Amino acid sequence: MRIAVIGTGSAGRQLADGFRRIGHDVVVGTRDPEATRQREEWSGSDLPLAALADVATGADLVVNVTNGNASLEALAEVDLDGLVLVDVANPLDFSAGFPPTLSVKDTDSLAEQIQRAHPEARVVKALNTVTASVMVDPGSLPEQTTIFLAGDDAAARETVRALLAELGWVDIVEFPGLDAARGLEMWLPLWVRLMGALGTAEFNLRLVR
Amino acid sequence: MRIAVIGTGSAGRQLADGFRRIGHDVVVGTRDPEATRQREEWSGSDLPLAALADVATGADLVVNVTNGNASLEALAEVDLDGLVLVDVANPLDFSAGFPPTLSVKDTDSLAEQIQRAHPEARVVKALNTVTASVMVDPGSLPEQTTIFLAGDDAAARETVRALLAELGWVDIVEFPGLDAARGLEMWLPLWVRLMGALGTAEFNLRLVR
Repeated sequence: MRIAVIGTGSAGRQLADGFRRIGHDVVVGTRDPEATRQREEWSGSDLPLAALADVATGADLVVNVTNGNASLEALAEVDLDGLVLVDVANPLDFSAGFPPTLSVKDTDSLAEQIQRAHPEARVVKALNTVTASVMVDPGSLPEQTTIFLAGDDAAARETVRALLAELGWVDIVEFPGLDAARGLEMWLPLWVRLMGALGTAEFNLRLVR
Repeated sequence: MRIAVIGTGSAGRQLADGFRRIGHDVVVGTRDPEATRQREEWSGSDLPLAALADVATGADLVVNVTNGNASLEALAEVDLDGLVLVDVANPLDFSAGFPPTLSVKDTDSLAEQIQRAHPEARVVKALNTVTASVMVDPGSLPEQTTIFLAGDDAAARETVRALLAELGWVDIVEFPGLDAARGLEMWLPLWVRLMGALGTAEFNLRLVR
């Protein structure tokens, strides 16, 4: 599959590397590819970079891993027509320091905002509940844990489920509606406090039932 | 320990029975003890009932398990002076149907509202992340799972931690600040959707790190 990863932060980089490791053709979208290539963390990478307006050309799937508060602006430049968009971002607002608050919550979610801005795309919320190293390598944790996905379109959910399985996820809980992204994003306020209490971001929940 | 349980719904009943089972002296607070005793689910119970104004007399610990949207009003009648108050309630608002929204969130929490209304009490948020049958019998799930507690007062947290251990909880994650209740209460939007997806309320998360 050709996957366009939007976002050049640490999580975008790890996801892009992770998708390539399992055999996908990956391109990373950024506002200014030349400026990104000059950044220390990208100068040694052979991951292809493309401008936002071009990155989705020929792509089968797009992954949003930009800062949640910049996602709508960044995605506005991407042609998502007919594509599955996996939204990994979280609407964390650090403007008042740590712990962050959520800039959208409860009766709406970032994933739904993106879906409304791009009615031609099929948005699936997934992977936002864990740190990037766990997203691409769930086996790095000492036990199998649980990952979630939520979306309105059944075929899009199936595509993302298969991608999660390729990454090594086994316990995948699926919500047949994008509004479940509200619950997935509202897990973050507990997640950030757990990161503090546990002293690591490398943890996840295993759903026991 | 003498424990006053505030709330006569199913969760209050199960918690009161659970505390008694592990040897505590339990009294259940209600607005009108005679009316409560006439309700079908209480007529056959020998759990003592007391009016809200009297229920905390002689108690060592008070547990709030009222409906989250009625908690402040109910607790206003209870004398919490110097007592540890375990807040188990969740601020779920079902007025627009299912799934519920949260009537307080993100920058505040029900637990903090209760603490501000009762500065003389030592509020600890705990047990709100699981259904009542799991609260009092964590061993009913097929694997050990995780429970949380949050509070400003270290001695109060220690008291609640010991009570959770008596109920059978082993993996207890403690937050040294009541504002972590924001995270614990914001877990509920995901919890209610999981209840729908899994078809049961009898589940919990096991924190894997």
